Amino acid sequence: MGSALNLADAVLAGSRLALARVLTQVENDTPLGREVLDGLFRHGGSAHLIGVTGSPGTGKSSLVSRIAHAYRNPPDPLNKKRVAVVAVDPTSPFTSGALLGDRVRMRELAGDEGVFIRSMASRGALGGLAQKTAAVVQVFDAAGYEIILIETVGAGQSEVDIARLAHTTLVVEAPGMGDDIQAIKAGILEIADILIINKADHAGVENTERALRLMLELSHPDRLTKSPAWAGHGVDDLEKDSWVPVILKTIATTSVGVEAVLGAIAQHHRWLEQSGAWQARERARLKSEFDWLVQSTLVARWRSALAPGEYEGALERLLRREVSPHRAVISLMLPRHSAEESDPSTRSG
Amino acid sequence: MGSALNLADAVLAGSRLALARVLTQVENDTPLGREVLDGLFRHGGSAHLIGVTGSPGTGKSSLVSRIAHAYRNPPDPLNKKRVAVVAVDPTSPFTSGALLGDRVRMRELAGDEGVFIRSMASRGALGGLAQKTAAVVQVFDAAGYEIILIETVGAGQSEVDIARLAHTTLVVEAPGMGDDIQAIKAGILEIADILIINKADHAGVENTERALRLMLELSHPDRLTKSPAWAGHGVDDLEKDSWVPVILKTIATTSVGVEAVLGAIAQHHRWLEQSGAWQARERARLKSEFDWLVQSTLVARWRSALAPGEYEGALERLLRREVSPHRAVISLMLPRHSAEESDPSTRSG
Repeated sequence: MGSALNLADAVLAGSRLALARVLTQVENDTPLGREVLDGLFRHGGSAHLIGVTGSPGTGKSSLVSRIAHAYRNPPDPLNKKRVAVVAVDPTSPFTSGALLGDRVRMRELAGDEGVFIRSMASRGALGGLAQKTAAVVQVFDAAGYEIILIETVGAGQSEVDIARLAHTTLVVEAPGMGDDIQAIKAGILEIADILIINKADHAGVENTERALRLMLELSHPDRLTKSPAWAGHGVDDLEKDSWVPVILKTIATTSVGVEAVLGAIAQHHRWLEQSGAWQARERARLKSEFDWLVQSTLVARWRSALAPGEYEGALERLLRREVSPHRAVISLMLPRHSAEESDPSTRSG
Repeated sequence: MGSALNLADAVLAGSRLALARVLTQVENDTPLGREVLDGLFRHGGSAHLIGVTGSPGTGKSSLVSRIAHAYRNPPDPLNKKRVAVVAVDPTSPFTSGALLGDRVRMRELAGDEGVFIRSMASRGALGGLAQKTAAVVQVFDAAGYEIILIETVGAGQSEVDIARLAHTTLVVEAPGMGDDIQAIKAGILEIADILIINKADHAGVENTERALRLMLELSHPDRLTKSPAWAGHGVDDLEKDSWVPVILKTIATTSVGVEAVLGAIAQHHRWLEQSGAWQARERARLKSEFDWLVQSTLVARWRSALAPGEYEGALERLLRREVSPHRAVISLMLPRHSAEESDPSTRSG
């Protein structure tokens, strides 16, 4: 147990080696990882979590690299921030270091002690990639990284879930990529706080901008639906008509427009704090993580208490329609659980 | 207990009164409802479940009414089918009878003993509207309704979830409604097996058709993502390149095009059976209903065993960052559950 305390202390003291080790433990959801996170958690809560999503080919990874670089090299050195990049690829079965343009990033940010890059993939993601990402982000937060860029390959529900972890969400587009269609298909547009048209020196940039503006107008009434998970927390009311997504143009290869992106992020940060949305998002995020953990813990414990093949057997009986779904579930509930279900189960034998 | 058996028998014998009573019990997830469904379930499995979704204003309800009418009055009387309509409105807090154009339908289908219309809304939907709809559909299926039309007001995740219950999904559009954008925003297009442009006598029908064709082309590579819940069941492989959604035009007010819709549904039915997709969808649907029931049963039992305020207290300590999410959850787990979690929980006191 001393090991967990030592590791937590080492992370808080700034050891990159300890941090890397803890991230691996946390990502694999080991008992040690959980224990270290238990110790670290109270030190977090101040990082600005920035989600960056967009289709492959938009130059998103280069842009993230430039944004990180800009936070490390501000006009006023006092504004210099520690930056973590969490690159999540739900489509990749690998967790190698060469994901998502890491090599490019490595070259540009190499040797900077104030930057930490971590790639995550879906390999062995029993616990849900969004939840693992949340835990990894909590480690960086506690370790004093002030800016945490969470990069995802946008287009599915997992990306939307991961983007919901963020305080500020950037959606990256590029001219001539099917534009609009790609963006909205997964409801990505509805989660965007800042829309970026990268590769703004390419042909077709006006079309992309026009399409995005049109869709922004169309989707604006729907910003109420931004996060169903937050319903009842007052976030939606606060956000209503308060933050209208901005559209920015960048050329990541030459850093054109990157300063404006940092400006928009800072502006969004101020709005989050002034409107109360920052705190509301924190609450909503932690509550949904809590509920998810309750659920997955209960299901995991329940399954581990079953005899081998018991779950599969009940499922097969259901598929053969020998039992109803409800009866199939009841048949797998242990007697000690059955108090309030005793009525229907008396017939199941 | 005799009551449940009698009710099930009465439903199987064709009593509309018993059916209505059972639907109410099942929709409210009462012990009686569960027990009747336990008895009925084995009699189901042969109905063709047809999801119909689309934005308000597309004339979807009239179209559903016309489709039901056409199944009741086929050119060859031997093809006459019994039809159930389940109208689901996740946005409505009411479960009154006047939902979703019911009055129009009532007029057209009134007095036909082979048609049963049931409206559902989100009121008191603790158990998830999709799950309740699944249970209601199982009752109709067992009661011998051969065609079950599941109508939803399309635009959100709930509609997509409900549409996933169906074997065949119809997405209804109409000219001049923001068309495309409305349809794809919620990923609705990706779940469409048959696309219908209703109000085809209105101006702008060519634009709508062009937009839908374009989007169909763009979204086709993504049909693999049709249902993440089915991953691993081989459905996606089966469906790949096998069924290309068709686009049809209708004028529900005069029944123009309705026969063609029935033709396309029959064609899709044949494809489902020949490709094996029918069985794969049955399995996937029942498995996800099973898993969902396990989860919700475990969570409900767990919560009912907690002292009042215990859950809220743990959540508050988490929000104040006094404990990590994992520790907060462990603190609420009863000792009898803690076997495999004893390591981290030894420190929680």
